[in-house]
Amino acid sequence: MPHTIAVPESPRLASARDTGTRTVRVALAGCGVVGGELLRLLRDRSSAIERTHALRYHVVRVLVRDTRRPRPAALPADLLTTDVDSFLATDADLVVEAIGGLEPAGRIARHALARRRGFITANKALVAAHGEELAALARQGGAPLSYEAAVAGGVPVIRVLRESLPQAGVQAIRGILNGTTNFILTRMSRGVPFAVALSEAQANGFAEADPTRDLNGQDAADKIAILAWQAFGTLPERLRVHRTGLLPDPDRIVGDAAALGGTAKLVAECVRLPTGVAASVEPVVVARDSAFARASAEENLIEIDTDSSGTIRLSGPGAGGGPTASAILSDMLRAAPAPAPAQGGSDGLVSAPDTRPHRWAVSVRGSARERAALLRAADRARVGVTEAGEERGSGITRVLTTPLTRARAGLLARALEAAGLRPVVLRFEAEP
Amino acid sequence: MPHTIAVPESPRLASARDTGTRTVRVALAGCGVVGGELLRLLRDRSSAIERTHALRYHVVRVLVRDTRRPRPAALPADLLTTDVDSFLATDADLVVEAIGGLEPAGRIARHALARRRGFITANKALVAAHGEELAALARQGGAPLSYEAAVAGGVPVIRVLRESLPQAGVQAIRGILNGTTNFILTRMSRGVPFAVALSEAQANGFAEADPTRDLNGQDAADKIAILAWQAFGTLPERLRVHRTGLLPDPDRIVGDAAALGGTAKLVAECVRLPTGVAASVEPVVVARDSAFARASAEENLIEIDTDSSGTIRLSGPGAGGGPTASAILSDMLRAAPAPAPAQGGSDGLVSAPDTRPHRWAVSVRGSARERAALLRAADRARVGVTEAGEERGSGITRVLTTPLTRARAGLLARALEAAGLRPVVLRFEAEP
Repeated sequence: MPHTIAVPESPRLASARDTGTRTVRVALAGCGVVGGELLRLLRDRSSAIERTHALRYHVVRVLVRDTRRPRPAALPADLLTTDVDSFLATDADLVVEAIGGLEPAGRIARHALARRRGFITANKALVAAHGEELAALARQGGAPLSYEAAVAGGVPVIRVLRESLPQAGVQAIRGILNGTTNFILTRMSRGVPFAVALSEAQANGFAEADPTRDLNGQDAADKIAILAWQAFGTLPERLRVHRTGLLPDPDRIVGDAAALGGTAKLVAECVRLPTGVAASVEPVVVARDSAFARASAEENLIEIDTDSSGTIRLSGPGAGGGPTASAILSDMLRAAPAPAPAQGGSDGLVSAPDTRPHRWAVSVRGSARERAALLRAADRARVGVTEAGEERGSGITRVLTTPLTRARAGLLARALEAAGLRPVVLRFEAEP
Repeated sequence: MPHTIAVPESPRLASARDTGTRTVRVALAGCGVVGGELLRLLRDRSSAIERTHALRYHVVRVLVRDTRRPRPAALPADLLTTDVDSFLATDADLVVEAIGGLEPAGRIARHALARRRGFITANKALVAAHGEELAALARQGGAPLSYEAAVAGGVPVIRVLRESLPQAGVQAIRGILNGTTNFILTRMSRGVPFAVALSEAQANGFAEADPTRDLNGQDAADKIAILAWQAFGTLPERLRVHRTGLLPDPDRIVGDAAALGGTAKLVAECVRLPTGVAASVEPVVVARDSAFARASAEENLIEIDTDSSGTIRLSGPGAGGGPTASAILSDMLRAAPAPAPAQGGSDGLVSAPDTRPHRWAVSVRGSARERAALLRAADRARVGVTEAGEERGSGITRVLTTPLTRARAGLLARALEAAGLRPVVLRFEAEP
């Protein structure tokens, strides 16, 4: 069940090492939203990756459905193929799969791993259906298999479960793992009927043309099976996930939850019980002020209950080209022939003052004299103020400034101190 | 700037490998809340660690302040020493430091890394003051240096920043990183005066006898400097953190925030600007319904703004023996002489039904006949119900059940379906 194992060096890689930078040949299956974004990232970050990881990715083949669709400019047309056999015939060090579905993704995965090539995928259906089979192939060949992008987009929950939390003793994982249904439920909780919310989700690119796997909970079930595998070792192929989707009557679900004072969310869960691991995906009525209720639209949220570290939460955009492609690139860098050099990740930036404008809340305590001094100092410093009033009986006068740099807010504070006042100066971020 | 680099094998480790399980000799500096919890974890998890990582930790020396204090039973008295020289004279593969403060922690760190021993610490002051110096030593010797436990307890923010998010393009990090001040501010926002809230924090073990570094923001400043190092490469020794603590007048800070309609939080921040990285720790007025306002008591919250993956949030208990010791153990396993085997982390559990009792919200649509059928079916299934009423004019009757297993809730649903009704059954988790 390797998330990533060290990849054996091919002779070509070993010889390239002598020059400092190694070239990694990449075959990419799929050039849609995710694949296209990955190509863009590889292009934009190529010099940073070479500097920090001493790696150069060379895309040698791209499997697409239609060679005539417009592609990123940097992609030479002769890299494209619609033929899986031709794609498989291209030798590469790493195969990245972003086409989704069981086939031909499964064939591409088995082919890559059997030839001891790294395989990196965003495909939750594939990993849920054949994860342990692929992991066994990866173990046999000593090739890396990684799928961080398959769950929760750019939120690195798989790596956190595998590498950071095992020693904390994971007891349960609960999550909002399907952006489409969460977008729909969020809209419906604001009064939008199901049919409208679904078409909004499709218009916004969250839902597929056929959203069946989102609505029936299968997408979230695949993801929780992958997370249970990381946390508990339950093979995803064998885990039974109790699954209830939003159909047939999403409006009743949302209405019932609201009538009961809560919010309906499609919650995926796996929990360690004395008899084994129970897993489910179902609509759950959660408290309106809970973290779950507050995870809105396409946000994913994962809560991990542990023995030693309490409840750890991770959240962020759960899908989309950018987050998913970032997660794939992060897996690619980990699958590189050697660990990142010591300077990895460092941009070597320097310390700088905060030149951004912030609003500041400034208060002074005292009588009319102190209040006048505050307003006078603000006026001299050409600081716009919104008087927020004097708290009755407290003698405290507060103002909110117009946006100022920290340096200018400091000048105002020092002017007040020079006038014998003791101002309290707070950065004010309470407004949207 | 290595978080963890592969440790070179000592001859002893290499020979132990032949037997399958390797023994790692550990010298532990500090046996207070964190060190004591680490010893307990090492004892309780020893067989699991041997199974999953083929490692056996052998604690060979423990540096303490007072050998007469009661210690975990499993700790032989002859391992204890109060003498730093004697501690340093003990050869170990890994040195774990949980004493805090700059000295003798710094001496222990330099001694370990110069001798190419792994060094793992929970000491944010040490890493903030000498991080790059220690990282350089670690690079020279090829020894692992890890400090996940130094920031946010069991929340693996350092590893996420170093390994998962660099490719996402981190732009800013904001966090509640000091549990003591957050506990105090949370209590004060509920009307408790500062002096009382501080003594509560001390009674609850959050605040030190001398809470100066918490209250003046230095603890949070050390942590944000460490996070900025991971994200931007700004050396912690050189980063200037603009720092404003809660003193001299915490009651004014909380009062002003409340009067302005927000909540006061001590926010640590680092942000990438065109000129470099600006870092600060200061009280900020945040919106009452924001994630920051909702991080209460000793919870730590970190928000990471990225180019490709939007805003990622991590939260959890930010301090305490359990979370900190878990983070240290996770670093220890990563610093092991070889990567975890393929089965790492897997308990190999099996799928099981959910036998926990949940409350269920069951609704049917129809007239008095359907309502009566619902109540009759519940009665026959011996399901206790709390009638939640009929929505006016909708003809929908809802009940909440007493806690039932999923299997029994399913029986009720099937009885209703057999009676020709189409029930909606929702798990109800909205109550505290």
